[in-house]
Amino acid sequence: MSSPAIDVLALGNALVDILSHEQDDLVTRLALEKGTMHMIDAARADEVYAAMGPATEVSGGSAANMTAGVASFGGRAAFIGRVADDTFGRVFAHDLRSAGVQFDSSLASDGQPTGRCLVIVTPDAQRTMSTFLGAATELEPDEVDEALVADSAVTYLEGYLWDQPPAKEAIRRAAAAAHGAGRRVALSLSDPFCVERHRDEFRALVEGAVDIVFANEDEICSLYRVDEFDDAVRLVRGHCEIAALTRGSRGSVVVRGNEMHVVVAAPVHEVVDTTGAGDLYAAGFLFSLTHGHDLATAGRLGSLAAAEVISHLGARPEVPLAELAAPLLG
Amino acid sequence: MSSPAIDVLALGNALVDILSHEQDDLVTRLALEKGTMHMIDAARADEVYAAMGPATEVSGGSAANMTAGVASFGGRAAFIGRVADDTFGRVFAHDLRSAGVQFDSSLASDGQPTGRCLVIVTPDAQRTMSTFLGAATELEPDEVDEALVADSAVTYLEGYLWDQPPAKEAIRRAAAAAHGAGRRVALSLSDPFCVERHRDEFRALVEGAVDIVFANEDEICSLYRVDEFDDAVRLVRGHCEIAALTRGSRGSVVVRGNEMHVVVAAPVHEVVDTTGAGDLYAAGFLFSLTHGHDLATAGRLGSLAAAEVISHLGARPEVPLAELAAPLLG
Repeated sequence: MSSPAIDVLALGNALVDILSHEQDDLVTRLALEKGTMHMIDAARADEVYAAMGPATEVSGGSAANMTAGVASFGGRAAFIGRVADDTFGRVFAHDLRSAGVQFDSSLASDGQPTGRCLVIVTPDAQRTMSTFLGAATELEPDEVDEALVADSAVTYLEGYLWDQPPAKEAIRRAAAAAHGAGRRVALSLSDPFCVERHRDEFRALVEGAVDIVFANEDEICSLYRVDEFDDAVRLVRGHCEIAALTRGSRGSVVVRGNEMHVVVAAPVHEVVDTTGAGDLYAAGFLFSLTHGHDLATAGRLGSLAAAEVISHLGARPEVPLAELAAPLLG
Repeated sequence: MSSPAIDVLALGNALVDILSHEQDDLVTRLALEKGTMHMIDAARADEVYAAMGPATEVSGGSAANMTAGVASFGGRAAFIGRVADDTFGRVFAHDLRSAGVQFDSSLASDGQPTGRCLVIVTPDAQRTMSTFLGAATELEPDEVDEALVADSAVTYLEGYLWDQPPAKEAIRRAAAAAHGAGRRVALSLSDPFCVERHRDEFRALVEGAVDIVFANEDEICSLYRVDEFDDAVRLVRGHCEIAALTRGSRGSVVVRGNEMHVVVAAPVHEVVDTTGAGDLYAAGFLFSLTHGHDLATAGRLGSLAAAEVISHLGARPEVPLAELAAPLLG
């Protein structure tokens, strides 16, 4: 098996975030559930956008944010996801490529417009998200470059992909190509509601096709329908080669077989916006793992990246993570 | 003369700002002059954008920022400017309307795409701007609603409009309609290079068609080709009914005939980004003037609004200016 050209390849929903600061009453008026992500159609997206105040646009998407993190550490990252040949599609491609991520997907000239996530930020710093997936839902299996998958040490899948049935064939094909080439497959459970929607499939994946699972406390407890984190840890360590489980300010727990590492959270001066914390934790973890570091170091770099991204608005790193990581890597 | 429905109507270039943080060497490599605004064509816009890192998009445009400020004070503001029926055009219209500004212009279905301003922010907090005006250059005289002009206490023109010859007829028509209805016309000199390009026309305007002129120290000195601010003040007070001249941290000077008010700058905890300072000063000033306050109060509300906008990234206010102004207005 030759050395892979790419450290981490991610498949995910390509989205541009549209953010505005609002009072709590708007969330109520729009009948949204605060702090969660809602899947919406184009008409509802127009309705929510019309109700929002002046906004800011910035490229997002959970798995894409993760790849931007890997690149910021100096790793070789690539992303596969579908955007349209429109303004937001060009913005998404520009931002990802200029972050140093390989993004070879062509901009689709037909089908739906590029997906967007309408983000309402309330005074308590919580985010209420309404996602119109648009072009992202039309990811075709043949848009997954199997040679690229085979040439990537890890292929990373975001749980949100399961919300769009047509993507499943693309995911299956990617996972098969990765294992066929002797590479690893990672899965992020994305959010507790996503786990609710797809629990059986996620369970089957974690027990079968997936080598590395990322989840926070709520997600992993939901996956196993248990109340206690320790019970979830006991279950997942029997199912999946590596599990990296985040616990907010209480740090993270990394398990592999009988091995367990408890990692403290990196210090943060002020938590401004927690979006992207899980994505960036995964970025630091996978960068470490694909660069020969041990699991404890992987957890520490994950915490470091998460701490950077929650210290400012926005879900992609604002300073080179390689510089922050240098003292830890000696 | 009936009471006007609108306090301040602005004519300006409708733009979406695309901002990225960069090191100084990118400015050099692109052969741009740091801290200034460059007019560029579509091909050059592609070139500059491709060289920029991950970016953020937010609605901008000097005169549009001013109207957002007037609305934030609780004033009645309207904007006339041309955008295309494309993503950035819809973003611009959404952001301005949701800020409380009346924007009746239809989104043009033909012609150039919506204009954009590529903003490179260097570590010294300076902004180097490259503006592709796009649809803004195609503002037709018949897009100026003369009934709206006649129903606005002040019609405000940004100097940047003179960079697009087709707009001149629209401007002339607006100024004539305003004066025909017994209203006032205001002009912002926009930037020192803009004054360089259009000095003779601006001089003629200030001496003739304009009742209120806004300028900073560099701009007013450039207009009269003098080195000393005091000389410029002496000249402008003989030419224009009201001149509001800003001097950064040294506050502003407001003159009308023999009347002169020296206004101190409002305190700012930390200057983060000076963009929009002049636009928001004009917003506070014109809101005051159209609400019957004296010139000293107008200067103070201008300073207050400028202080708010330079305390954060972005050129539109982030908190309701009406709340900040309440203690000053009693």
